[in-house]
Amino acid sequence: MVKAGILGGGQLGRMLLQQAANYPVETFVLENDPGCPASHLCHHFVEGDIRKFDDVYAFGRQVDVLTIEIESVNIDALEQLAAAGVKVFPTPAALRIIANKRLQKDFYAEHNIPGAPYIAINNRQELEQHTWFFPAVQKLAEGGYDGRGVQVLTSAADFPSGFDAPGILEKMIDIHQEISVIIGVSQNGETAVFDPVEMVFDPALHLLDYQVCPADLSPELRLSAETIALQVATSLHSPGLFAIELFVDTEGNVLVNETAPRVHNSGHHTIETCYSSQYDMLWRILLGYPTGNPKNFTGSALVNLIGERGYSGTARYEGLEKLLAMKNTSIHCYGKQQTRPGRKMGHITVTGNDREALVRQAGDIKKMVRVIT
Amino acid sequence: MVKAGILGGGQLGRMLLQQAANYPVETFVLENDPGCPASHLCHHFVEGDIRKFDDVYAFGRQVDVLTIEIESVNIDALEQLAAAGVKVFPTPAALRIIANKRLQKDFYAEHNIPGAPYIAINNRQELEQHTWFFPAVQKLAEGGYDGRGVQVLTSAADFPSGFDAPGILEKMIDIHQEISVIIGVSQNGETAVFDPVEMVFDPALHLLDYQVCPADLSPELRLSAETIALQVATSLHSPGLFAIELFVDTEGNVLVNETAPRVHNSGHHTIETCYSSQYDMLWRILLGYPTGNPKNFTGSALVNLIGERGYSGTARYEGLEKLLAMKNTSIHCYGKQQTRPGRKMGHITVTGNDREALVRQAGDIKKMVRVIT
Repeated sequence: MVKAGILGGGQLGRMLLQQAANYPVETFVLENDPGCPASHLCHHFVEGDIRKFDDVYAFGRQVDVLTIEIESVNIDALEQLAAAGVKVFPTPAALRIIANKRLQKDFYAEHNIPGAPYIAINNRQELEQHTWFFPAVQKLAEGGYDGRGVQVLTSAADFPSGFDAPGILEKMIDIHQEISVIIGVSQNGETAVFDPVEMVFDPALHLLDYQVCPADLSPELRLSAETIALQVATSLHSPGLFAIELFVDTEGNVLVNETAPRVHNSGHHTIETCYSSQYDMLWRILLGYPTGNPKNFTGSALVNLIGERGYSGTARYEGLEKLLAMKNTSIHCYGKQQTRPGRKMGHITVTGNDREALVRQAGDIKKMVRVIT
Repeated sequence: MVKAGILGGGQLGRMLLQQAANYPVETFVLENDPGCPASHLCHHFVEGDIRKFDDVYAFGRQVDVLTIEIESVNIDALEQLAAAGVKVFPTPAALRIIANKRLQKDFYAEHNIPGAPYIAINNRQELEQHTWFFPAVQKLAEGGYDGRGVQVLTSAADFPSGFDAPGILEKMIDIHQEISVIIGVSQNGETAVFDPVEMVFDPALHLLDYQVCPADLSPELRLSAETIALQVATSLHSPGLFAIELFVDTEGNVLVNETAPRVHNSGHHTIETCYSSQYDMLWRILLGYPTGNPKNFTGSALVNLIGERGYSGTARYEGLEKLLAMKNTSIHCYGKQQTRPGRKMGHITVTGNDREALVRQAGDIKKMVRVIT
């Protein structure tokens, strides 16, 4: 049996492991919290720090193939492991590009992949020299996640909230739609493209509020989005699963926002709606099988369950009884014992082909189901 | 979080646990083999014998709700646990009826549920007095499983292979079709009926060869099958999931063969084809939620992967590369390290709505995928 390791033990690892049990694979997870969402679903849980060279290297030497469920891992160790013959997907080289927002933007520019104009910024002093570029979004090169490390700057008055660290300043664009395209790339370069997903964010928490699949795109825009996403995925020259987040601006241009080289929040619905979910797809890739069928057999809306404001402590899901009486909903609880405001605690998939009905139902569900204490 | 225990750690437990991770539930498994298919997917694996009173009782005292994935468990312990306030689904009373083939037949007769005529038989001497009832099938009251404990008797020449133990002698019927209807019964008595499945058995191994869903039934026969299955499930007065196996005889009568009070081989396809799979359905029932939606959104064929004759030892799956290149197949490997002839090692679900194409593809897959050493 192939031995496969996952760096990180959060909900993405959890859902990967639910799917792993379909294949002949022995699973390993490295994570510093033994109570993490994925710890009880693998064959071998290893307590350790995914950011520490020694921990990652020792962990990786036990397995045949290694993947990640979060980008903030020790890439040096992954390079050494790849050199020692461990299959690392995404490749350390691809990961190094993506883990640094400035390298990522440079990569898109070098490959003529459209994105918002940007300027490299190293500190607050440089930031203050570029008010002419405002309104803009400052992004830290490293360490940003879930809305952290991102700051909107509209005028000099915003300087105090700017970052005094290396990153980029990205021209603010007039966003019409935020979409995501997930692509699997197999070990022999075969690609599988999932239907574009449209996302709506909560402006306060920068967390995905709900998403609808398929995205409401004209055939031209859809083709454009898929072509650009494929260009990103194939230019990285790495097997793996890639979530390419795109903007459609108010002038109808499709621009790359950023790429995640792993299973992604915008692909949760594929568990219920696709022949091969994003989790299944990644296992096929890791294990050297052909890619799966990414086709949707139904549309969907996805509602994220995030910790309710004002509640911190042992988590309790309110409203499940009512939710589960609906005949087209599935819930995924992430097994986190503690909730806190904004924490990702689960998601709900709603299936159907009437977009308006889906959005209405997603709105109802957001009011109905709460994660409290 | 609710604490839920499963007696048995085979592939049914494995698939139950894959689904459990969607709900706020802490899982426990009792099984004597720490390398069993389900052991690494639960929060707490307990090594012990599901047939021993002390093991089952001590295990059950730790949990809020208890279920089974195999019938051969210690029912006395379950009765004590239920008396002590543990929710046991199926109820020990229902399980006692089903675990004994003679009690089960008596139960059907008492409830006017149609079945093959039968006679209670206690030993070979009694058997030999009933040649007038031949051709018949002798079934042991207890301990039969996967074709064991079942013997076809056509004439006095078959006496030596008859059982010298309590059981039943069932009149041989002219079987036109073998079908199965799975029904979920929630804690408040709500029922959910899955589409009837049609089964084809391997006559040599008595193991499911492949099955097709939905079964090829006239509307009248389908109604009859569902009505009888509902009658069985509700007459047991127990929450749980029930697989009711039925015969359609050559005269168009629907007769109950037997009932399994648990997730069942004939419901594996529901993972891919239903809003709520049989595994999801059982969790909803165990956790006190409403039943899920048992509706199929696609037809399917299911191929069992059984250990190839002539091979015993460390298992290897042959033909996966070719199988997984098909765009409508999903595999479920059961994680058993050792294969032996006839052992259930996995299954493959093929989805589609063209019955002939499904059956043809199932046949191709049976030749393509083999479990060898």
